[in-house]
Amino acid sequence: MKGTVLYGPRDVRFEERDAPTIAKPTDAIIRISATCVCGSDLWPYRGISRVAKPTPMGHEYCGVVEEVGSAVASVKPGQFVIGSFFASDNTCPHCRAGYQTSCQHKEGVSTAQAPRLRVPLAEGTLVATPDMPPADLLPSLLTLSDVMGTGWFAADAANVQPGKTVVVVGDGAVGLLAVLSAKQMGAARIIAMSRNPSRQKLAQEFGATDIVTERGDEGVARIKELTNGVGADSALECVGTPESMMQALRSTRPGGHASYVGVPHGVALTGDDLFWGHVHLHGGPAPVRRYLPELIALVWNRKIDPGKVFDLTLPLDQVAEAYRAMDERRAVKVLLRP
Amino acid sequence: MKGTVLYGPRDVRFEERDAPTIAKPTDAIIRISATCVCGSDLWPYRGISRVAKPTPMGHEYCGVVEEVGSAVASVKPGQFVIGSFFASDNTCPHCRAGYQTSCQHKEGVSTAQAPRLRVPLAEGTLVATPDMPPADLLPSLLTLSDVMGTGWFAADAANVQPGKTVVVVGDGAVGLLAVLSAKQMGAARIIAMSRNPSRQKLAQEFGATDIVTERGDEGVARIKELTNGVGADSALECVGTPESMMQALRSTRPGGHASYVGVPHGVALTGDDLFWGHVHLHGGPAPVRRYLPELIALVWNRKIDPGKVFDLTLPLDQVAEAYRAMDERRAVKVLLRP
Repeated sequence: MKGTVLYGPRDVRFEERDAPTIAKPTDAIIRISATCVCGSDLWPYRGISRVAKPTPMGHEYCGVVEEVGSAVASVKPGQFVIGSFFASDNTCPHCRAGYQTSCQHKEGVSTAQAPRLRVPLAEGTLVATPDMPPADLLPSLLTLSDVMGTGWFAADAANVQPGKTVVVVGDGAVGLLAVLSAKQMGAARIIAMSRNPSRQKLAQEFGATDIVTERGDEGVARIKELTNGVGADSALECVGTPESMMQALRSTRPGGHASYVGVPHGVALTGDDLFWGHVHLHGGPAPVRRYLPELIALVWNRKIDPGKVFDLTLPLDQVAEAYRAMDERRAVKVLLRP
Repeated sequence: MKGTVLYGPRDVRFEERDAPTIAKPTDAIIRISATCVCGSDLWPYRGISRVAKPTPMGHEYCGVVEEVGSAVASVKPGQFVIGSFFASDNTCPHCRAGYQTSCQHKEGVSTAQAPRLRVPLAEGTLVATPDMPPADLLPSLLTLSDVMGTGWFAADAANVQPGKTVVVVGDGAVGLLAVLSAKQMGAARIIAMSRNPSRQKLAQEFGATDIVTERGDEGVARIKELTNGVGADSALECVGTPESMMQALRSTRPGGHASYVGVPHGVALTGDDLFWGHVHLHGGPAPVRRYLPELIALVWNRKIDPGKVFDLTLPLDQVAEAYRAMDERRAVKVLLRP
C-alpha cells in the first residue's frame, strides 16, 4: 500500500508503506473513501512545526469498515463510517462530559492520507451513516471528521444564539464552516473577516451578512462601528495566531463570548487582556465526536452543505500537489480520492 | 471633614479634606455607616502598584443618603443604600447585559474611607435596603459593596451548579465569600486552598468540605487525587497572581469552568494553557451592581452572613492601623466606623 509521508519542509511523498492491520481488539481497519489536507498540516509542511523524522500524514477520513477487532461491536464490516482526528473511548469522564478530544485514553489518528487506515478505540470513535451515502454527499461527510465539527465547536463554544451578532476571524475551511455553523444556529448577523474575494463569496453563500477586510486596530474599530460601539456577542477565532486571537477578543462585547479552535502558534494573553475584557473564553481541540450524530443527520438530510469548502479534488497519488495548492492559497481545501 | 489618603508605600494618613458636594445632577451624597479596607488596597499600600501623588482611598461603602442631585429619583434622602466600587448608569448596553463594571459611562468610587462620600451616577449605582437595617446586619450589608458580590461573581462566572465540585484558590475575604457563594448555589463539594488555620475555620463555617494546603504542582496533584483524577467542575481564582491562576486552570477538568476575580498582577497565559486545558474562562471586575438586589434580600432575610469576614473593627480615624493589620495578615478584613 502507498501512503503520504512528510520528510521535511515542502517535501511530501506518496510512497510504499506497510498496510495497516488489527493491532488491538479495539481497532478497526477502514478503506478510505475520501481524505484531505488540513490547514493544520501546513504548520509542519511549512517547517513552522518541526518534524524530526519522516512522518505519515492525514487525520481526516471517512470510508467503509473492512475489519474490526474482537472488542468492537458498534460498527461492522461494510458500514460507512466517519471518525474524529483523535480516537476516544467515549466512556471516560471527559468523553461523557462531551470533551472526547481530552479522552483519558485518546490516541491521535495520523496516517489517513492513504487508501487504508487503522482506527484505534473504534467502538468509541467511529459513527456509521444510516446507509451507504450517495457519491455527492462524500465531500460534506468528510468535513465532519474535522473542519465542520471544528467550525461547529467554534460557534458552540462562543455561545452563538438566535438573533445575535457573530464575528468570524479566519477565512480558511474552519472559518468558513464556522460561518455556516453560526447561520445554522440562528445568528442574525455574521461578520466574516476576509480579504480574499473567492473566500468572501463562499462565506456569503454560507450565511455571512457582512465582510470586514480591515485587520488589527482598524479591524476592531470596524467591528465596533458595525455594532453601535458595543462589540459582537460572539467572536470565533479560527486561525491560531496572536493577531487573530487579539482580533477576536477585542471584537467581543463585555459579557460576550470568544472561542478559539485554531492550534495556537505564539499566542499569549496577559492578565489585563483576560480581566478587563470581561469576555467569556472557551476553545481547544474540537470534540468533533460529540457532534458527529447531529452533523451526520444535517448532511444526510441535506440541511447543510459543508463540502463546498473543497474547491479542488485530486487523486490521492497527487497529494504533494494538494499540499502545494493549499500552501500557495490556490485552494481553500483539497479533497483526495484513493 | 477628615478622610483617608495614601501618600506612598505604608504611609496612610487620616487628614482634613474638602467635604463632598453635589457636582452633577446625577450625584448623591451619602453619610457612611461603615467602610473597610480591601485586599486590592494593599497593592498600592505595599508599593506594588505605584501612587504618583497623595491618593484618597476607599471603594466599599454603605450608608444613609443625605442629598441627591436633581436627576436622581430612585433613591431619596434618609434611605440606607449600598453601591458598587464602580458607579454605573445601569442603562447602557453593557449594564443591561449585566456587566455594570464595564458601563460605557463608569466612574470609579475611590474616596469611601471617609465620613461622607459623593457617589456619581447615583440613580444607576445605589440600591436601597427595604428599611433602616438593624445594627448587626451592617457588616454583611457592607460586604455587598465589593467582596461578597465579587465572591458571588467568582462562583457565577465559574458556572457553579448544584451537586458539583468546586475549588476556591485564595483565602482572603473574596475567597472565603466565594466559598459561601458556592455553598449557597448548591455545590456538593467545596475545596478551599488555604494554609491559615483561622481562615480554614471560617472557610469551613461558610461551607468548605475539604481543605488543601499544598500549592503548585502538589496542589494540582492533590485536587486530582480528591476528584478521582478528573479535576474540579469549577475553579475560582480569588487572588490575581500567576501562581493562583495556574492553580485554578490546572485544577479544572476539561470542559469545566475557571473564573478569575482578583485584579491580575503579572498573570500571563500561553495559547497552549488556553487551548489544551479545554477550560471555560471568565472573570474580570465583578459586576456587583447586578447582584445587589438578590444579595440584599439574602442578607436581609438572614440566609447568609458574609459579615463574618470582618475579624477586626476600628474607628475610622485608626484607618492606618487597619491597613497594617491586613498587610501583616493579622486580620482578614477590617471594618471601619466613622
